[in-house]
Amino acid sequence: MNSSLNPKRTIVELKDLRTLTGNEHGAQRVAFTPTWSKARAWLRAKLEQLPVEIHTDAAGNLWATLRGESKKALLIGGHIDSVPNGGWLDGCLNVMAGVEILRRISAQYNGKPLVTVRLVDWADEEGARFGKSLFGSSACSGNLNLDEARGLKDKDGVLLPDALKKIGVEFERVKDSGIELKDAAAYLELHIEQGPVLLDLDLPLGAVLGTFGVERHAITFHGQAAHSGSTPMIRRQDAFLAVAKMSPEIYKIAERSGDGVCTIGSCTTKPGIVTSVVEECRITLDQRHLDGAALARMLQDAKQASERFAQEGNVRVSWERLWQIAPRPFNDELIALCDESIRETCGQVHRLPSGPLHDAAEVAAAGVPTVMMFVQSLHGISHNKIEDTHEEHLELAIRAFNELAEKTMLWIQKQSHLVPIQS
Amino acid sequence: MNSSLNPKRTIVELKDLRTLTGNEHGAQRVAFTPTWSKARAWLRAKLEQLPVEIHTDAAGNLWATLRGESKKALLIGGHIDSVPNGGWLDGCLNVMAGVEILRRISAQYNGKPLVTVRLVDWADEEGARFGKSLFGSSACSGNLNLDEARGLKDKDGVLLPDALKKIGVEFERVKDSGIELKDAAAYLELHIEQGPVLLDLDLPLGAVLGTFGVERHAITFHGQAAHSGSTPMIRRQDAFLAVAKMSPEIYKIAERSGDGVCTIGSCTTKPGIVTSVVEECRITLDQRHLDGAALARMLQDAKQASERFAQEGNVRVSWERLWQIAPRPFNDELIALCDESIRETCGQVHRLPSGPLHDAAEVAAAGVPTVMMFVQSLHGISHNKIEDTHEEHLELAIRAFNELAEKTMLWIQKQSHLVPIQS
Repeated sequence: MNSSLNPKRTIVELKDLRTLTGNEHGAQRVAFTPTWSKARAWLRAKLEQLPVEIHTDAAGNLWATLRGESKKALLIGGHIDSVPNGGWLDGCLNVMAGVEILRRISAQYNGKPLVTVRLVDWADEEGARFGKSLFGSSACSGNLNLDEARGLKDKDGVLLPDALKKIGVEFERVKDSGIELKDAAAYLELHIEQGPVLLDLDLPLGAVLGTFGVERHAITFHGQAAHSGSTPMIRRQDAFLAVAKMSPEIYKIAERSGDGVCTIGSCTTKPGIVTSVVEECRITLDQRHLDGAALARMLQDAKQASERFAQEGNVRVSWERLWQIAPRPFNDELIALCDESIRETCGQVHRLPSGPLHDAAEVAAAGVPTVMMFVQSLHGISHNKIEDTHEEHLELAIRAFNELAEKTMLWIQKQSHLVPIQS
Repeated sequence: MNSSLNPKRTIVELKDLRTLTGNEHGAQRVAFTPTWSKARAWLRAKLEQLPVEIHTDAAGNLWATLRGESKKALLIGGHIDSVPNGGWLDGCLNVMAGVEILRRISAQYNGKPLVTVRLVDWADEEGARFGKSLFGSSACSGNLNLDEARGLKDKDGVLLPDALKKIGVEFERVKDSGIELKDAAAYLELHIEQGPVLLDLDLPLGAVLGTFGVERHAITFHGQAAHSGSTPMIRRQDAFLAVAKMSPEIYKIAERSGDGVCTIGSCTTKPGIVTSVVEECRITLDQRHLDGAALARMLQDAKQASERFAQEGNVRVSWERLWQIAPRPFNDELIALCDESIRETCGQVHRLPSGPLHDAAEVAAAGVPTVMMFVQSLHGISHNKIEDTHEEHLELAIRAFNELAEKTMLWIQKQSHLVPIQS
């Protein structure tokens, strides 16, 4: 079945793309910029060599459709946009693996598989220019908040709607892209892990269970400024000390939660001078879990801990929610198929949640059965020019992902009671 | 003996000074400014009504000398300069109490006490304009670092030597003021406490044991930045977590030290964003103790704690000394006299160290037997227009300080084997 699949070609293409759209600082395919348009034109030229229909939807997402006997469609997604000074794999591996699989399917089924197969290049997954990630996929899923997005500006003051107009997208109509999901029967996405889990396990590939739900808060402790020399320890209301005592407890909450993580990413102090007890200490807390109830419990436990340590330190605490998103668990049957495909390709598999968000989370939220496959990241690092993956792991990833695509096509046939062409 | 002492007059004078040199934001007698010169002219006019010699020394300190039978001199010191938007008592209470005591002594001894009595108004105790406190007294004690001070600029870029020239002080000669301490036999200074200790004890007055030694350091923990979503807890090298775990331990070290205090006054994080584990966390640590050995132990213990928590958290720690000063314990016999004077005036006394520095620390460092008396501060607050002390406590302070001056004159006589005029 895989006779025409050529993973090495994908690696060559990824290197070509790097040369075309990167520089000594890394990839420069920031969405809605000329370099991004150049990458898209290059991609389109590849797709035009296949028997696919190509169009851009109302949100600027690029679709290549290989029509099958049935309208029921297998979607394969990725994003060719990158952060500034990005890596050579994040997003475009997904797209180019998809191109290679389209090539294989179209060759194998003489341009007409039983189910329709579509590749989508989502617009502005990274949100690097306007600070709003998952733009194209959230427009398509219907989750995009138009009132928030309408006012977004880049660092030069250009509004998102004006940047979109330049590439022929009308901001007020972006949610019309939702029509693209009408016949979607499954969504698959391959991605580099961007973390160290597979590296630590010495495994090339993992089946992704879903994307974490996130609770993001600012926690501020309010104490009393006092002279560092003249104020006895017993008399102090030290906002920093309350934070210091609470923080290890917050980390313990994450450890107790199983797969959850939490991060105190910043700490600021006021007045913040060497000669004064800290009056106000503000930290940011980012909590993530794949299970909604477990995430809610982590948040509740953190709030209780903050109250306890505030009381102990005779200070006051206040919470402010910065952002939240629900967990997006992937489809159990597709997770099983992904697991199987990996096992068949390289013997061993690990199931893991995704900490970072992906377009797949939006597609899953729109009700399309979804799964992702992760390939090991070296150094666990992405969004940086040193982002890398062993080439043999990339080849394994493309092979396993291709297996998954085939298995998913059969799964769609079964789900939709379609009669296979060759059964 | 106290027949001519009039503490109420001092309070009226302090209020007059506030009207003359303050505004709705508080006292504005910043050293070497026109308002400070106005305050000094007002002070000089008061002193000219007494049988004293008045002169300004090589560092700009103002001296009023009531010549006694002996050259051996009792010094009473204070500073009429204030921080911007300062309180009505810090520094000028000391000076005006001294003026009142000069009046009493000169009246009582018909202008010729057995020992010489001198009032000094130190120049620029606060260091508010050039960032260097204790300027006049450190020039006089010889501790002033001329190379450091020569380059000091105010916020308008005016150099300290140029500002001094304007008031007739030649920078390169400021240490010539050391001659003033030649016959100094004792130094006394009254000050508001600037802390909450006497307030908490509900006591008006305290005998000061000396000024704290200070060790001031920046401590930086170096970990590894990592994505808050994709990095398992166990895989992290979190610089903030190491700081959080260490900090309560540092406070415990202060508590174990007896009278020592320590303050973590600021905390900064890099990259300091909500989605990244903290790579670098820097805190400032201020440790103070009256006992040099205890201070050294506190520092040593803090260093050990930092190493331990760095190791535990798989991060690295580095220390940078920002500043240090040795403790300045006051003279035991003068502390006893101060204690006695307070006890006789208001029944109860408390002995306490001074957290903030004072000109007395410089005089003590120059080898002159020294003691300070503290009067209770309301709210424990100074350097602010709300700085205040009950007027009845101010009266008690002036009375007790006058007692102390008298006892100290007798002590000097005894020390110097002088024959008392009236014994």
